[in-house]
Amino acid sequence: MAQKPSIPKGTRDFSQAETARRNYIFDTCREVFRLYGYAPIETPAMENLSTLMGKYGEEGDKLLFRIQNSGEQASNPPEKGLRYDLTVPFARYVVQHQSEIAFPFKRYQMQPVWRADRPQKGRYREFYQCDVDVIGSRSLVNELELIQIVENVFIRLGVAVTLKLNNRKILAGIAESIGHADRMMDITIAIDKLEKIGMEAVKAELAEKGIAAEAIAKLEPILALTGSTSEKLDKLAAAIAVSETGLLGIEEMRFIFDMVHKLEIPLDIELDLSLARGLNYYTGTIFEVKARDWAIGSICGGGRYDDLTGIFGMPGVSGVGISFGADRIYDVMSGLELFPEEAVAGTRVMFLNFGGAEELQSLKLLSELRAQGIPAEIYPDAAKMKKQMDYANRRAIPFVAIVGEDELAKGAVTIKDMNLGEQQQIEFHRLVELFLAK
Amino acid sequence: MAQKPSIPKGTRDFSQAETARRNYIFDTCREVFRLYGYAPIETPAMENLSTLMGKYGEEGDKLLFRIQNSGEQASNPPEKGLRYDLTVPFARYVVQHQSEIAFPFKRYQMQPVWRADRPQKGRYREFYQCDVDVIGSRSLVNELELIQIVENVFIRLGVAVTLKLNNRKILAGIAESIGHADRMMDITIAIDKLEKIGMEAVKAELAEKGIAAEAIAKLEPILALTGSTSEKLDKLAAAIAVSETGLLGIEEMRFIFDMVHKLEIPLDIELDLSLARGLNYYTGTIFEVKARDWAIGSICGGGRYDDLTGIFGMPGVSGVGISFGADRIYDVMSGLELFPEEAVAGTRVMFLNFGGAEELQSLKLLSELRAQGIPAEIYPDAAKMKKQMDYANRRAIPFVAIVGEDELAKGAVTIKDMNLGEQQQIEFHRLVELFLAK
Repeated sequence: MAQKPSIPKGTRDFSQAETARRNYIFDTCREVFRLYGYAPIETPAMENLSTLMGKYGEEGDKLLFRIQNSGEQASNPPEKGLRYDLTVPFARYVVQHQSEIAFPFKRYQMQPVWRADRPQKGRYREFYQCDVDVIGSRSLVNELELIQIVENVFIRLGVAVTLKLNNRKILAGIAESIGHADRMMDITIAIDKLEKIGMEAVKAELAEKGIAAEAIAKLEPILALTGSTSEKLDKLAAAIAVSETGLLGIEEMRFIFDMVHKLEIPLDIELDLSLARGLNYYTGTIFEVKARDWAIGSICGGGRYDDLTGIFGMPGVSGVGISFGADRIYDVMSGLELFPEEAVAGTRVMFLNFGGAEELQSLKLLSELRAQGIPAEIYPDAAKMKKQMDYANRRAIPFVAIVGEDELAKGAVTIKDMNLGEQQQIEFHRLVELFLAK
Repeated sequence: MAQKPSIPKGTRDFSQAETARRNYIFDTCREVFRLYGYAPIETPAMENLSTLMGKYGEEGDKLLFRIQNSGEQASNPPEKGLRYDLTVPFARYVVQHQSEIAFPFKRYQMQPVWRADRPQKGRYREFYQCDVDVIGSRSLVNELELIQIVENVFIRLGVAVTLKLNNRKILAGIAESIGHADRMMDITIAIDKLEKIGMEAVKAELAEKGIAAEAIAKLEPILALTGSTSEKLDKLAAAIAVSETGLLGIEEMRFIFDMVHKLEIPLDIELDLSLARGLNYYTGTIFEVKARDWAIGSICGGGRYDDLTGIFGMPGVSGVGISFGADRIYDVMSGLELFPEEAVAGTRVMFLNFGGAEELQSLKLLSELRAQGIPAEIYPDAAKMKKQMDYANRRAIPFVAIVGEDELAKGAVTIKDMNLGEQQQIEFHRLVELFLAK
């Protein structure tokens, strides 16, 4: 095979540097989720097609990757597909294992998903989702905890963010109060585009969809409300007073903002009535997180749903969840150079290899270093010194240790600082101590 | 949909308890690999079929899962397949990214693989592999490090193991010295079955394959050699003295056993001349790890290969690697009850929820606990106390915290030990301290 091998379009290899950075994001999420009582589950990459089909709309069905068992069965239609998101498998899991689960069920899940999208910049056919959900409780304390999780994760990652909140009940209330209760989804979808396409284009789209000019005129000032959050909520309550659902949504938002204030959660949070999020299973609070110092779409988002498991025959179980967009968070952190050096550091010290007794002594010292948790290695071959040093340089290993003939005789090791170029000698028995202090 | 949903045959959901235990195994491997200078890469779940086909034999080709892009293209033959192991993608990665890689390249990889095997007990269609390899060095120091990694991982996991070692060059030497140098693979495959089917059946199989009776007679005493490792190696050196390759293999084994002795690696290691391992790309040392206190196949294994990347046009690059069998290690550890409680522990304390000011106070205390790294939560609804206590019990949360009306007035929290049934009151400001000490 003369041609260099390659991977399928839209998929990626992750190098050691990239994987370390990605793991830093995942590990940070994991640590925070755990502090809030969430624990991981895993589901298989393949689901029955019957589980997946019809759950993502007509477009989604076309984007499912189907799986053929083997060459022999090429003529049979595929019965399995690759997971398209983590939400449907989660719903399936909850229904399938309902008797083993203690509700409210707090779970997170970090696994890849696959979509047969046309590959393009920033859009991949395989990517990780990182979802955290609690299902089986209507309490707004859950929303509050998710807000704290958002705050905690991004503080730890060092990413400055704004959390935008809205409530689907408020959107329903708006639709109802402008006389189009039955068109909530159309109105919501149009509003969702407000930031992208602007007010005029949204109005045009609504008109095109058959929303009356009078209704559109009523809608505009609602979307353009100003003032503090509580002022906005007050004005809104007056504007949509005819809608019981809408007022309930306002009450929910008031509770959340009030608690955020009382708990002094140090996060920039705003009510954004133009926030709708496309997914039509949301029924209450909706969340969206944006990075403040880097232009990119939302890096985290989610909401409350009242009937996720209904599609699998378990109706009326309310839950709320958010999803962290690992790829975009990675892009933001790379762009702003936010990955801390320690987080992605590998080997601290590499021993040069001179073979024989020197090699044996180096191996003994290595065992001592590793026993104290210090990542360390030896160049495996007694190659030319320049080759060994070049290798340490390419790997960005900060220290090189030398146990040559002289050092062996003295019972000392020479340590070279690869960044400063300085070197020092230290007795064998003080080596671990030196690196524990560094 | 009335029918309870399910997952494809041969795949698994992992519950929170199972995932925590699996992650304990993976995290332990990760920590140890890192100490030895290995870092992770990730490759896509899908590879081009041209990358996968012909790499696993005719049988393997049939066990590949193929991927169809979407409904529209059902008539086109699939061009992609799911990864069948981590070795071929590793070889592909090394060749594709050779210009970016510093050799020797020390990488590990923990990702699922898929095989369209007939599902049966202990055999799954989706399972994780956990491979650690170094490529681009012929030094036996690499073998030695892998042995140390094996020792370290299983010490940390608390699994008593025996590491069996052999060398393909010795097997080649044996074949040569009995006059069948050209039949090394046949002989190796037969020897590989020695433990399973016994000496007589192996002899029968060799005879069936056309190995002369005289040759088989020469082989038998070699496989039945006794004595210490160095005695065995001495006797073997005499028996296969005609084979230069064989003697080289013996030298390699002597070096490794000598270094294991000098470094006092506390691992039960034995030379096992009947160890062959099926994979035909091994060319030097071969490894196999067995649990000593639990009957199951090998839980870890690997070997040296001299031409893994040749299939992708990059010949003559030697490497050595081992693979940890996470599913089997899980079974051993479950069977022997070796998972430490801390490793799989979740929430330490759950606050009961009484709503209102009590809830707010509980949330404040929760923030303090979490800020100190203590996983803690509150039951989200002000439900009946029994319901809340039952939930804490089902989740096996060890402590329940109560901030009721009385406690709120006193500025104290009641802590109930769910295992002992005891309870105590403690002032708000001393709560974190209490849990840091527990």
